[in-house]
Amino acid sequence: MEKIFEQGLLYDFYGELLTEHQRSIYEDAVFNDMSLGEIAEENGISRQGVHDLIKRCDKILHEYESKLHLVERFSNAKEKIGKIEKLTVITESGTDITERLEGIRQLSEELLAEL
Amino acid sequence: MEKIFEQGLLYDFYGELLTEHQRSIYEDAVFNDMSLGEIAEENGISRQGVHDLIKRCDKILHEYESKLHLVERFSNAKEKIGKIEKLTVITESGTDITERLEGIRQLSEELLAEL
Repeated sequence: MEKIFEQGLLYDFYGELLTEHQRSIYEDAVFNDMSLGEIAEENGISRQGVHDLIKRCDKILHEYESKLHLVERFSNAKEKIGKIEKLTVITESGTDITERLEGIRQLSEELLAEL
Repeated sequence: MEKIFEQGLLYDFYGELLTEHQRSIYEDAVFNDMSLGEIAEENGISRQGVHDLIKRCDKILHEYESKLHLVERFSNAKEKIGKIEKLTVITESGTDITERLEGIRQLSEELLAEL
């Protein structure tokens, strides 16, 4: 997974568990694409301080994921829901409707068991 | 929500964030239906200690939910998936198939946006 994408997903799930200060700096670095120098100046801390804080946040977010596996669980669920959605699209070639509904039923059962 | 059911859901999501000691005692009280006295004796702590620990765990689990809302998000998702599953069941009276597929498509889109 591309790093910035992974950071975004992890932050989306666990960002609320960081402190406000951590969130502010992490967002500037990861989402607002600011340089370490810019963030350091804005917050009155050293570049090294900013660097360490971001690394620490990455570590915290990964630790939560290793315990709760939410990114993983939600990704799996989204994949299955995407498959369900595709099965609702009627194409010219027209797959058997009963088969589609059965496919959707199976996927939703799997989802209910996993979520 | 019935308390023990709510505790179960919260524990299911956030239990891994408690310490092993907290988990062990919380499980005995909430899932193994042991009395405070039994747990106290087994762990060599006072009944009051057990009581306080369980209360503290409840508080921690609720705090995580107030920040991450996972129980809420998953409950909503499960409800919609349940609706999808129902729409796959073909009844005698036979609702219009195109309508069913459209209903399923809408629900899956909502799910993808929310998850």
